[in-house]
Amino acid sequence: MYNELQPLMANPVCETTAQKKQQPQGPERPNSRQRFKEKLMQWVSYIAGDMAVFGEWMKGQFILLQILDWVLRGAAQVMFVNNPLSGLIIFAGLILQNRWWALNGFVGTLFATISALILGQNRGAIANGLYGYNGILVGLLMAVFSNAGDWYWWLLLPNIFMSMACPIVSSALASINSRWDLPVFTLPFNILVCLHMVATGHYNHHFPQVLFQPRKSMHNLTWSELEYSKLFCSIPVGIGQNIYFGLWGYNCVLACIAIGGMFYALTWQTHLLAVACAFFCAYLGSAIANVMSTFGLPACTWPFCLSALTFLLITTEIKNIHKLPLAKVTYPEKNLIYFWKMKKVERIDKQRKNQEKDVESQQKKEEIMAAMETKEHKRLDVCSVDVPQEETTQNGQDRNPEAIELNLTQL
Amino acid sequence: MYNELQPLMANPVCETTAQKKQQPQGPERPNSRQRFKEKLMQWVSYIAGDMAVFGEWMKGQFILLQILDWVLRGAAQVMFVNNPLSGLIIFAGLILQNRWWALNGFVGTLFATISALILGQNRGAIANGLYGYNGILVGLLMAVFSNAGDWYWWLLLPNIFMSMACPIVSSALASINSRWDLPVFTLPFNILVCLHMVATGHYNHHFPQVLFQPRKSMHNLTWSELEYSKLFCSIPVGIGQNIYFGLWGYNCVLACIAIGGMFYALTWQTHLLAVACAFFCAYLGSAIANVMSTFGLPACTWPFCLSALTFLLITTEIKNIHKLPLAKVTYPEKNLIYFWKMKKVERIDKQRKNQEKDVESQQKKEEIMAAMETKEHKRLDVCSVDVPQEETTQNGQDRNPEAIELNLTQL
Amino acid sequence: MYNELQPLMANPVCETTAQKKQQPQGPERPNSRQRFKEKLMQWVSYIAGDMAVFGEWMKGQFILLQILDWVLRGAAQVMFVNNPLSGLIIFAGLILQNRWWALNGFVGTLFATISALILGQNRGAIANGLYGYNGILVGLLMAVFSNAGDWYWWLLLPNIFMSMACPIVSSALASINSRWDLPVFTLPFNILVCLHMVATGHYNHHFPQVLFQPRKSMHNLTWSELEYSKLFCSIPVGIGQNIYFGLWGYNCVLACIAIGGMFYALTWQTHLLAVACAFFCAYLGSAIANVMSTFGLPACTWPFCLSALTFLLITTEIKNIHKLPLAKVTYPEKNLIYFWKMKKVERIDKQRKNQEKDVESQQKKEEIMAAMETKEHKRLDVCSVDVPQEETTQNGQDRNPEAIELNLTQL
Repeated sequence: MYNELQPLMANPVCETTAQKKQQPQGPERPNSRQRFKEKLMQWVSYIAGDMAVFGEWMKGQFILLQILDWVLRGAAQVMFVNNPLSGLIIFAGLILQNRWWALNGFVGTLFATISALILGQNRGAIANGLYGYNGILVGLLMAVFSNAGDWYWWLLLPNIFMSMACPIVSSALASINSRWDLPVFTLPFNILVCLHMVATGHYNHHFPQVLFQPRKSMHNLTWSELEYSKLFCSIPVGIGQNIYFGLWGYNCVLACIAIGGMFYALTWQTHLLAVACAFFCAYLGSAIANVMSTFGLPACTWPFCLSALTFLLITTEIKNIHKLPLAKVTYPEKNLIYFWKMKKVERIDKQRKNQEKDVESQQKKEEIMAAMETKEHKRLDVCSVDVPQEETTQNGQDRNPEAIELNLTQL
Repeated sequence: MYNELQPLMANPVCETTAQKKQQPQGPERPNSRQRFKEKLMQWVSYIAGDMAVFGEWMKGQFILLQILDWVLRGAAQVMFVNNPLSGLIIFAGLILQNRWWALNGFVGTLFATISALILGQNRGAIANGLYGYNGILVGLLMAVFSNAGDWYWWLLLPNIFMSMACPIVSSALASINSRWDLPVFTLPFNILVCLHMVATGHYNHHFPQVLFQPRKSMHNLTWSELEYSKLFCSIPVGIGQNIYFGLWGYNCVLACIAIGGMFYALTWQTHLLAVACAFFCAYLGSAIANVMSTFGLPACTWPFCLSALTFLLITTEIKNIHKLPLAKVTYPEKNLIYFWKMKKVERIDKQRKNQEKDVESQQKKEEIMAAMETKEHKRLDVCSVDVPQEETTQNGQDRNPEAIELNLTQL
Repeated sequence: MYNELQPLMANPVCETTAQKKQQPQGPERPNSRQRFKEKLMQWVSYIAGDMAVFGEWMKGQFILLQILDWVLRGAAQVMFVNNPLSGLIIFAGLILQNRWWALNGFVGTLFATISALILGQNRGAIANGLYGYNGILVGLLMAVFSNAGDWYWWLLLPNIFMSMACPIVSSALASINSRWDLPVFTLPFNILVCLHMVATGHYNHHFPQVLFQPRKSMHNLTWSELEYSKLFCSIPVGIGQNIYFGLWGYNCVLACIAIGGMFYALTWQTHLLAVACAFFCAYLGSAIANVMSTFGLPACTWPFCLSALTFLLITTEIKNIHKLPLAKVTYPEKNLIYFWKMKKVERIDKQRKNQEKDVESQQKKEEIMAAMETKEHKRLDVCSVDVPQEETTQNGQDRNPEAIELNLTQL
C-alpha cells in the first residue's frame, strides 16, 4: 500500500500548484523533457486527489450539472475517495454487472443528495459527496437483497423513501459521533437497509427479501479455514468477489483503509494497527453475520463500522499514532503531508525553545561575569554567586526571548 | 393540527393574565358581552395549558394532596400534557375499560413518584409529573401483558419494584441524553417492561407473559397495506384503538407531536418534518415488532422513542427548524410564542444594528463635511479624504453607539 | 459488609504511616505491648490495601518481575482489589480447581498487559492491573466455555488474540465512558468473549463452544424461587459456587461492591442503593441470560456492568450519595476517608463564612449606632425613615440590604 501511494505523495495537488508559481522565476531554464513532465504532473493533479480545481470550477455551473458531480463523488466516497471520475468508474462497473442494480444505486445517491439539500445540510459536505455514499449503498443493496426479481419497479418507492432518510440518520448520528470527532462511516446505510429488510422480511407479499438463515447444523465453513485461507485472501482480493462474500472482505479492506492512512496519519505504527483492525474486523464479521442471520439479515458493513470506530477511539501515548482532526481529513497523501508539517512545526518550536534556553543561560553567565568584574573594580569581595543570580531573575521578566535571539544572530 | 391550535394560540395563559391587568385601566368600558368573554377566557386559562396557577396553589397544600396532583400530571405526561385534569380523564377512561389495569397504572405512577422523592430528584420535575409517566406505563402494560389473568394480586410486587426503578433509569438516561439536550421520553418504561417480560417469559410459573411470536409463515399483513390503509389511518385515529395496535399508531402520533410543536417550534418546515417522522416511525415500528417478537416481546414505544430521538438530533442550517432548549419546553402554544419572541428580539437587534450603522455612516459623512467646511474657512486645500477619516476612527473608540441613538431620537 | 470494613477503616495505610512519624516525638513512651501492636499494624499496612510501598519498590526491579506484579494485580482487579497477594490467591485457587483454566487465565492476563504496553497505554494504569483483569476473564472463560476439552492447545491462539484486543477495546470504551467519568468495568471482557463465542459457535470444527439453549418449555426455575431462595443466597454466598451459577451471584456481588463503597462513598444511603442495585442486577441477569441464550451465549458479566453503570449515572440532590471522581477511586476505606475529609473541609469553609458574616453584621450594627449617635449630637430631627434610607441607598453598594432591614426594625 505504501508503495502505491509513493508516486502520488511526491506530487500532491497543493504543492504542485505552489511550486508552479515559483519555478518560472528560477534562473535555470527547464528543457523540453522537464517541461513535458511538469505538464503531465499538472494534468495528473487535475484528475487525481479530490479534483479540487474541477470542484471549484463546478460551483459556477448549472445546478443539475453540479448535482451530477455530487452524485458521482458520493458513489466514490464509499471507498473514501472524493473524485467524480472514480464515481463514474463505479457506475460503469455496476452497469456492466446489472443495469437494474445500477439504476437503483443511482436513484439512491440522487435522492439522498436532494434530501440533504432540502434538509439544509452543509453545502460543502454535500458537494464532497458525504451525503451520497449512504444513498448509493441503500439503493444498491435494497435491489440486491430484494427477492422480487429485477425490474420490479415498485421497489423504487421504498428505495426513494430510505434514500431520503439517509441524511436524517446521517445528521443525527453525526451529532453523537462528532463529540468524539468521529465520522459516521456507513452506519446510516446499515441502519436503514436493516430497517427495511426486517420491516418487510422474507414472507412479505410486496417486498420480499432474500432469506439469510442461521447456521444450525455442521457446516463446512470453520473458524480455522476462515482465519487462514479466507481471511488472508479477502484482505487484498476483497473488492473483486461476488457481492455477498465481497462485502465481507470489503469490510476488512475498508477498515484497513480507514485506520491506515485515512483517519490516522500513515506511519509504520498505524500500519500495524490497520492490519490488527482488519483481523479484528474479520472476527467481528463472522460474529455479526451469525447474530444478524437470527433476524434473517445480512452483516452489511456493520463489521467495518464497528471495528473502525473502536480503533479510532483508542487513546495512546505513542506520538506516531496521530488521529487527524475530522475537519482536516482529505485523502491519505494530503493527511500525511499535514502530519509531517505538524511534526516539523513542533520540531522547530522545540529547537527554538532549546536555543532560547541556551541563550538565556549564556546571558546569565555573561551577566554574572560582568557583575563579578564590576565588583572587582570596586574591590569588593564576591563570596557567593547568590547576589548576581537574584539580579538576573529580576530582569528576566521584561526581557523578550526573541529579542535575545536577534541579539545572538547579530553577534 | 395547526388549525386546532389556533384558538388556543390566540389566547395563551401568560398573555391573558398580563392583558387582564392592563385592560381595566383603558379609557373604553367593555360591554357585558366582552366582560363575559373575558371571564370565560380567565376560567379557560385556569384549566387549560399547564394549570400553573393551580400548581402554585397546590404548593401550600397537604403532601398527600400534592402527590395526587403529581400522579395525575404524570398520567397526562404520557401525551406530553402537564395537566391534572387530563390525568383524571385518562384514569377515568382506564377505569371504564378495565379496573384492574387502572389500579396497576395508579400503583405504578404512585410508586414511581414516591421513589423519585426518596432518590432526591428535582422537586420541580416531580411536580410536573416527569417521573410519573413512565410509572403509569410500566404498571399498566405489566398488567396488560400478564398472562395470569386480572386481579392476580402478586403482580403488584414486580409492579412496585419496576415502578420504583423508573426514576433510577430515568435519572441515568437523563445523564446521557442531557449531553445532547434530549429528553428521555418513555425509554425507562420500554427498558423496564422489556426487562420484566424477558426475565419472566411466557412459561414462568408465577408471572407468565402473553406470547409474542415471530411471523414465520405467509401472513396477511403486508408492507403495502401497512403503508397505505393502516398507516394513514393510524396517525389521526391512533389513540382510540384497542391497546396493541393502538400502541403502534400511538407511536406515530407521539412522534408526530414530539417533532411538530413540542420540541421543535411549529413552523411549516417542522410540520413536514413531523409527517416524515411519523412515516419513519411506522417503518421502524414494523421492524422493531419483528425483532422484539424473536424474544417474545412487544414493540412497546421503542419506535416512537428512537424515531423522535433521531429527528431531534438533526442539525440543520434552516432557521425555521428551531429546536427549543429542553428547559424551555412547555406546551406547543407556549413554545411557539417563545420562538416568535426570540425571532422578534433577533429582528429588533438586527434593525438596531442596521440603524446604528446608518447613523455612524451618516455621522461620518457629517463630520467629514464639517471638517471640510472648517478647513475651507481656514482656506486650506483638502487634497484627500485620508485626514478626516483618521479623525473619525480616533473618536470612534470612546463613543457609545447607544449614545448616538439617543442623540438621534432627541433631534 | 460495613462491619467487615470496620477493622481496616480504623487503621488505614496512609494514616498509619502519618501517625508513625508523629508518635515517636510524643513525650509518653509506649510500652512493649503498644510497640508490638504498632509493629503489627505496620506489617499489615505492607500487605493490605493497595500495597503502595511494595509497588513503589517494584519500580526499581527487573521488567519481568514488574510484569509479574502487574499480572497478579490484574487478576485481583476482577474484584476491584489492587493487591498482588490477592492475585496470587486467585491463581492458587484456579490451579487447585483446573490447571488448564489457570494456564489460560495467566496467558490472558500476561498478553493483555503486554498489549497495553505495546499500545502505549498509561503506565500507572498498567501497573495497577487495570489492563489485566479483562485479560484473565477472557482467557479463563474462553477455556471454560470451550467444548473441545481441556489441554486443547490450539485454543491458546484465539486466547492470545482476544487478550491482546482487550486494551484496544478498553481504551476505546474508556474514551466514551470517561465523558461521564465512568469506569469500563468488565465490558471489554463481555464484548470479546461474546465476540469469540458467536463467531465460532457450537458447531465449529476447530473451536466449538458449549451450547447455551433458550428455555422453550416449562422449566423448574421460576421467578419467585429465583427471587426468594436464590437471590438472597446468591448475594452473600455468590463467590463460592460453581462457575456458571457463580457468575450470576457474582454479578450481584460485584454490582453491590461497585455501588456500596467503591465508586460511591459508603454511607447508609449508598448502602441501600447498593442493595437495590443487587436486586436490579438479579432481575437484569435473568433477562440477559434469556436474551443471550437466543444466540447460544452465556450472560457473562453483562448484568453487573449494565446495572452498575445505570446506578453510577444517577444524579441526585442527596449530598450523602457522593460519587467519587474516577481518578480518586482506590479502595472503599480510602474512598471513605477522602469523602470524610472533603466533608470536613466543606464544614470548616461554611463555619468560616458564617463567622465572617457575623463579624460583618456586627460591624454594620456598630456603624449604624455610631452614625445615629453623631446625628443626635448634631441635633437633627429624623422625621421619617426616608432620609436615612436614601443615605443607605447612596452608600448601598457596600452595604448589605439585611443591615437596612435591621435599621428599620430598630426604629
